[in-house]
Amino acid sequence: MPKGQLLYAQSGGVTAVINATASAVLTTARAHKVPALWAKNGILGALREEFYDTRKLKASEVKGLAHTPGGAFGSCRFKLKSIEQDRPQYERLIDVFRAHDIRWFLYNGGNDSADTALKLSKVATDLGYPLTCIGVPKTVDNDLVVTDCCPGFGSAAKYTAVSVAEAALDVAAMADTSTKVFVYEAMGRHAGWLAAAAGLAGRGEDQAPQLILFPERVFDEAAFLAKVQAVVEKVGHCVVVVSEGIRYADGRFVAESSSKDAFGHTQLGGAGPMLAALCKDKLGMRVHWTVPDYLQRSARHIASKTDLAQALAVGKAAVELALAGKNGVMPTIQRVSDKPYRWKITPHPLSEIANHEKSMPENFIREDGFGITDAARTYLEPLIRGEVPPPYDKNGLPAFVRLNLPLLPKKLAPWPT
Amino acid sequence: MPKGQLLYAQSGGVTAVINATASAVLTTARAHKVPALWAKNGILGALREEFYDTRKLKASEVKGLAHTPGGAFGSCRFKLKSIEQDRPQYERLIDVFRAHDIRWFLYNGGNDSADTALKLSKVATDLGYPLTCIGVPKTVDNDLVVTDCCPGFGSAAKYTAVSVAEAALDVAAMADTSTKVFVYEAMGRHAGWLAAAAGLAGRGEDQAPQLILFPERVFDEAAFLAKVQAVVEKVGHCVVVVSEGIRYADGRFVAESSSKDAFGHTQLGGAGPMLAALCKDKLGMRVHWTVPDYLQRSARHIASKTDLAQALAVGKAAVELALAGKNGVMPTIQRVSDKPYRWKITPHPLSEIANHEKSMPENFIREDGFGITDAARTYLEPLIRGEVPPPYDKNGLPAFVRLNLPLLPKKLAPWPT
Repeated sequence: MPKGQLLYAQSGGVTAVINATASAVLTTARAHKVPALWAKNGILGALREEFYDTRKLKASEVKGLAHTPGGAFGSCRFKLKSIEQDRPQYERLIDVFRAHDIRWFLYNGGNDSADTALKLSKVATDLGYPLTCIGVPKTVDNDLVVTDCCPGFGSAAKYTAVSVAEAALDVAAMADTSTKVFVYEAMGRHAGWLAAAAGLAGRGEDQAPQLILFPERVFDEAAFLAKVQAVVEKVGHCVVVVSEGIRYADGRFVAESSSKDAFGHTQLGGAGPMLAALCKDKLGMRVHWTVPDYLQRSARHIASKTDLAQALAVGKAAVELALAGKNGVMPTIQRVSDKPYRWKITPHPLSEIANHEKSMPENFIREDGFGITDAARTYLEPLIRGEVPPPYDKNGLPAFVRLNLPLLPKKLAPWPT
Repeated sequence: MPKGQLLYAQSGGVTAVINATASAVLTTARAHKVPALWAKNGILGALREEFYDTRKLKASEVKGLAHTPGGAFGSCRFKLKSIEQDRPQYERLIDVFRAHDIRWFLYNGGNDSADTALKLSKVATDLGYPLTCIGVPKTVDNDLVVTDCCPGFGSAAKYTAVSVAEAALDVAAMADTSTKVFVYEAMGRHAGWLAAAAGLAGRGEDQAPQLILFPERVFDEAAFLAKVQAVVEKVGHCVVVVSEGIRYADGRFVAESSSKDAFGHTQLGGAGPMLAALCKDKLGMRVHWTVPDYLQRSARHIASKTDLAQALAVGKAAVELALAGKNGVMPTIQRVSDKPYRWKITPHPLSEIANHEKSMPENFIREDGFGITDAARTYLEPLIRGEVPPPYDKNGLPAFVRLNLPLLPKKLAPWPT
């Protein structure tokens, strides 16, 4: 095994279990006696040479990461330019890696991070610097190709299904004299995976959620209102789940249709409040709506056991692949069987994953466009199975760990980011 | 013990544990061999003579109610007129009670329901009909007087504190390149109890939530923006929790300040989105916001053990008080000690509870108006203690019970409601 250090970093929106992946990375590195650094705020920490020495973390802290949501040392929304546009940026990274003897780089994120890891491995090869780059999957959007599902999605999906099941009981109880239509806005700009997961809360067209709106389908206001009206007449109330990214036929986001009020102030609407307002204005019905926003992707308290196991497994596999010198790959989750649900981890070239996006398959959306099919259920159900609550302290709050380490001293001149 | 039946009904917004109170009511009635009816949709079911015979429920169903949120046979937002305004309405209720030999009436709700139970007991006395009326406390708003806290509040408070703690870790991870200000809107039109509970998520001014806005304080836009700016400069990000009911100095709700867009469509804003828009417009910061709405009051999956125990206790006590002929009272929760937290159930006259509302005490709000005091912590902490998750089915969803009974045959002519 070559001498050197391993660098781990998180990228993009964080999840309920991305720190679990980090925990497995650190645990596996320790088992192989490989020193692991952790970059502050993702790839920005690498550019800025801001690293934490994880050898200083207590075993209890590494273990505690597995039940702590968020990104323990920060993530970033920062896409590197192409090599052609900004080669010095990539060379800076290699300089930093060389200064800290970093031989293995694990980038934990979505499409963009897979792309970054891939490009970095190419530049390293060009420069003759020995570096193994691994992409580690993560995203509540579940939109990575090749992998059967993405760590982070299962827990957000469980949050969604449980929350909708609970709120639906509330709506049913109030409908006679109060709320008739309840709208739940799920994350998902381009793909309706989380909205689809809400479908697990009920069975059959009459059980909540009675309507699901996917970004994979054009939003048709008249058809939507007619359907809501019909459901309320038949069931007495209607629970609507909507992906934030639904659009009109002309391509405009429904959420964007009101951006300024009469005073020129920004209106931070969303598809959910918009649909609720529509039902109120056009159908004259009492409405309520919810936008869980970050709550849905940070809800470690209702994490899925399947998801946690997969988040840990990709972290472990990433280190093993790195140490085996498998450059430019991502450990992906492959489904072996549905019943019983079995899966395994298989490495796959980053070149086939970077910059691709997976939408919901056509056969997962019901023909009328307002619900999920049995095929979708078969796919989704195992992903939310099992409960793995965090430990709680004596005051009834989750005992999350909060890491506190000093940054390592820098060895190079500052970089202007 | 006199012959006759007991009638139970739910009123107002439902909670994560109101069905637990129902479960205790039915269990206690069964233990005393008293047949219990349950009115559909609260007092409306009594006016309409829509009753379920709970003797037909299986023991497993009665038990399962204790972990099922919502209101199993419906609730209502329906306030009876005063006796002077609509005496026939009260007489109708007594006619219905007489027809079904209902001798004990338990109304599970907030201020209004206490008032209804009280008036009904007066009319029964006037008419010489032997009826014992009991108010059973419930409300996530925690605004009933006399009782130390209200069943339903502790679970919503736990949901709030846990959700804010989780989302705060997400915001902290993203703040460098993305969201700087995150706004969480809590229920509470007149009293800031749920917003205050969010304060349990952190300690000290720098820990999230860094700002809490209470309806008990006038909203001062300039002071708010200055505080957000200062927190972001010091901490790097800012988590704001706001009660839906905050108002400007002139009495207008902040949530009401934008009600129509340029096309005349209703904008269903809320205090949360409004404050987020303010931070975006005036401070130029990236913002995210959440409005959990019904999720916070139906989240049985994260119920508080203290709250569940109290919801069960008031149900049991209500039946015992009823059977002992204690007319016109409510079983209230009295705090015996803070450390260790001890409480007991004590009956109290409805006349002193009906139509009163409890705000947060002055000494629970920090002097600067943006946080909670140690006195508030001492009060709130025991209410969210302990975890009592529902059982889950094999597919990872809570195994809630869904009751399905036929309505009892009517004995009287229809009533026009």
